[in-house]
Amino acid sequence: MKLICTQENFKKAIYNSERVVSKQNTLPILNNILFEAKKGELKLSATNLEIGVEVKIGAKVEKEGKLTIPAKLISNFINNIPSSENISIEVVNQNMKIKCGNHKALIKGLLADDFPLIPQKTTNYILQIRANKLRFIISKIINCAAINETRQELTGINMILSPGEASFAATDSFRLAENILPLQDNEVNNEQLNILLEKNNNLIIPSATMNELLRIISSDDDQVVKIAIEDGQIFFDVDGTKLVSRLINGKYPEYKHIIPKDFKTTILINKEDFQGSVKMASLFSNSKTNEIILNVNGKESKVSIEAKSVDVGESSSFIKTKVEGEDQRLVLNARYLLDGINAISGETVAININNESSPISLREIGKEDKVEKNYIYILMPIKS
Amino acid sequence: MKLICTQENFKKAIYNSERVVSKQNTLPILNNILFEAKKGELKLSATNLEIGVEVKIGAKVEKEGKLTIPAKLISNFINNIPSSENISIEVVNQNMKIKCGNHKALIKGLLADDFPLIPQKTTNYILQIRANKLRFIISKIINCAAINETRQELTGINMILSPGEASFAATDSFRLAENILPLQDNEVNNEQLNILLEKNNNLIIPSATMNELLRIISSDDDQVVKIAIEDGQIFFDVDGTKLVSRLINGKYPEYKHIIPKDFKTTILINKEDFQGSVKMASLFSNSKTNEIILNVNGKESKVSIEAKSVDVGESSSFIKTKVEGEDQRLVLNARYLLDGINAISGETVAININNESSPISLREIGKEDKVEKNYIYILMPIKS
Repeated sequence: MKLICTQENFKKAIYNSERVVSKQNTLPILNNILFEAKKGELKLSATNLEIGVEVKIGAKVEKEGKLTIPAKLISNFINNIPSSENISIEVVNQNMKIKCGNHKALIKGLLADDFPLIPQKTTNYILQIRANKLRFIISKIINCAAINETRQELTGINMILSPGEASFAATDSFRLAENILPLQDNEVNNEQLNILLEKNNNLIIPSATMNELLRIISSDDDQVVKIAIEDGQIFFDVDGTKLVSRLINGKYPEYKHIIPKDFKTTILINKEDFQGSVKMASLFSNSKTNEIILNVNGKESKVSIEAKSVDVGESSSFIKTKVEGEDQRLVLNARYLLDGINAISGETVAININNESSPISLREIGKEDKVEKNYIYILMPIKS
Repeated sequence: MKLICTQENFKKAIYNSERVVSKQNTLPILNNILFEAKKGELKLSATNLEIGVEVKIGAKVEKEGKLTIPAKLISNFINNIPSSENISIEVVNQNMKIKCGNHKALIKGLLADDFPLIPQKTTNYILQIRANKLRFIISKIINCAAINETRQELTGINMILSPGEASFAATDSFRLAENILPLQDNEVNNEQLNILLEKNNNLIIPSATMNELLRIISSDDDQVVKIAIEDGQIFFDVDGTKLVSRLINGKYPEYKHIIPKDFKTTILINKEDFQGSVKMASLFSNSKTNEIILNVNGKESKVSIEAKSVDVGESSSFIKTKVEGEDQRLVLNARYLLDGINAISGETVAININNESSPISLREIGKEDKVEKNYIYILMPIKS
């Protein structure tokens, strides 16, 4: 292998591939990135056996070939190089020689033949969505996915594809967030959608995969994410960076019916005030249960947030706001409530409540002051 | 106790006092801040028994009194409060009631009588130095102090006061940095200096104390640090925030004679290039010894930096620069060398070398391209 490429391309390729590299040391080659030089391009591949990444960049290839080298070392090398010149690479005796300006290095590699195969898709993409739109949708729900692995399906993001929309949801069984992405005709490949609808359109994508996808999406407004689904795998393509991941086996909970349709009380509340008051109360809540009390008082047009713990003391704040419907008194988990408030865009949070033992919902206010229907954050009160 | 004060003053007072609060839980009252209200002012005190802090702020005191409350809780409370209104405080039955805008809290306290006494000075200040100048001096040496406590005197900053200057130094026995502060007449109280010179002018200040001092110094150019020394204690006063700390008992190593006076080789090198090349080499150095090789070649007018390790590979960089004197080849610890380069101000590092087993020095270039004499960073080569 012998080639020259720009430092900018090389850096981007390393950045997009190094993160999936395994942190475990049981199989040393999984700590490495596979470099393959072929006709005018350099391909980098990395995998932790769950997620695989492939990045191609243009290169002046003098001699084809391949080798794997440690991801962490090459990443530190390229991020600290005190020169902006082109990178020239040559493989000699299983070592990679790198030259850049006045700097040269020799990095010991491992044979490419031992590198695991990264699954390749054989079908067409089913979705092509603006990357920023997808990132916005996912970032509002991903924090609700479970960390704990006792119920593996809850550690993923649920994606249900149907004609006209893709709905994304996450829950750890204490709270749930759903975000619906309406699909335009030009965003969907109907042939592939029909094939999927015949099999199984209810998929679970690992959160780690989604986080990796969010990371490689740039702020470029024109960037598009292409998605293919095939044999228990999901394939993403973002500007030539390919991500492939296994889907989680299992059945995602049927959550749609637990989203209440009607509510007895509705409040519109200033997001910043609410956030601050809940944060404040959480300081005084019991550190294990994190319980705070939400009091809705229609007569006095106010919402108060209270907390009390034997060791610390107590606090109470109130926010003046219009209340529609019945008075309410609920015990909530402050952290889960805060996660929900933080996910809301805009200055106002719409809160819907039925009673002290039914889920409450947070929604956003969209254009023309109407409640936004696509996003919902649901929270179960604590039985007091 | 009953009073009103501005939120701004209260926040600053909490910020300046909370950090010294002990992280240990053996004596619960050490987790607390002591609040004392007296004629028009509120005084906050905190201590970890090594360092004590006192901050006074103006307050409208309706009723005098005192109480201690948990530092972490009041700090979180005041930093998250979603209101900018004044703070009103009232103590009722060993509880502190705090009100601010629509928010109120009750914090359980511990009796002020159990709070440790913070030493008070009885003599005049010996030094009055511009705070920014002192910060600049100390920040260039403090990283050299030892972390390890086997030789307690090395964990501190050495301060030697003499007529006309204060010299500050730190060493962990592998490298040493010294910074000399020339003193103007109006910065020294000669009466106090003479008393000190008769006793012991060679003091060791704990690094933790110096770090705390650096933290409370603001960016205000007019700020002055007043220093008093008395009975094994050092007292600082920065704009009304008082810090008191024990001095470290023990004899600081006589380091002045190990600073070489003459050198066989001198190089002026671009700081950024040198930094980058050493960083690069450190990636390829043995992770335990961190050894890199510095090669100075007069004939080729260049300095090269090399590293090699059996597991990883090797690297080499060179920097073109003028060499005065003999060629040199040294083995150095990359981390210690980098710490030294990082501490240098300006674009150029002046390096002085004698041979592969004598200390090398880094110095700054000051006005009119002259080597700055007050600051020196010294590093012992590794025997190869």
